[in-house]
Amino acid sequence: MEAAKTKKEAYGYKRELEMPFEAAMERTREALKNEGFGVLTEIDMKAKLKEKLDKDFREYVILGACNPGFAYEALVNDLDIGLLLPCNVVVYAGDSGTVVTAIDPEMAMSVTGDARLEPIAKQVGEKLRKALDTI
Amino acid sequence: MEAAKTKKEAYGYKRELEMPFEAAMERTREALKNEGFGVLTEIDMKAKLKEKLDKDFREYVILGACNPGFAYEALVNDLDIGLLLPCNVVVYAGDSGTVVTAIDPEMAMSVTGDARLEPIAKQVGEKLRKALDTI
Repeated sequence: MEAAKTKKEAYGYKRELEMPFEAAMERTREALKNEGFGVLTEIDMKAKLKEKLDKDFREYVILGACNPGFAYEALVNDLDIGLLLPCNVVVYAGDSGTVVTAIDPEMAMSVTGDARLEPIAKQVGEKLRKALDTI
Repeated sequence: MEAAKTKKEAYGYKRELEMPFEAAMERTREALKNEGFGVLTEIDMKAKLKEKLDKDFREYVILGACNPGFAYEALVNDLDIGLLLPCNVVVYAGDSGTVVTAIDPEMAMSVTGDARLEPIAKQVGEKLRKALDTI
């Protein structure tokens, strides 16, 4: 267990970990799985920026996490909500250690102006935060 | 060229097309490519909901579109912006025909409260809208 706790930031939750990138990736996947999230997508941004722009960037992976039950509930309420799915969890090399950050779904979905999505987004946010706490 | 034009909605752009789902998918991919977007991720939500929940849902695919140059510029301004990348473009079966909708990046990124991202988001939004116009 790391000493650092999950922090609430402007539009996400953040955990700073004193462990190498690969170990943090593995533990993030496990933590998401334990909270009912499948990882539907994965983008290696470092590799992509090198390939497309020949730019050197830090280790930076964007995971698309989805809890199917909540996703279904959200889609039934708002067919266009796929524009804000899945929930991104980003793992990147910090200046020391590794940073794991997850979107705050309540914040992200606030742009819809749809109050019916609020309780769903709140529950998903709590699960994401719990996942980060247990890494 | 369809008669319907791209409409601005609460948090996205929308185009309603009088063509089958598969044709709309193909033309959406082509239109995104022509505007400099790579499709980094693809989620077949219909298949996923069937697999995970045994729910029957309409054809519904979430594409993650990314323009590497703009993504790099955004990341240099805000390292956490990967939480809002890539830009989602959703193609789904409408009540008749097919609907293509793209996130409004200005709206999505407004949750960051970071004014430096605004001009980047605006340019990406214009490109997404142009892509939808040309489907």
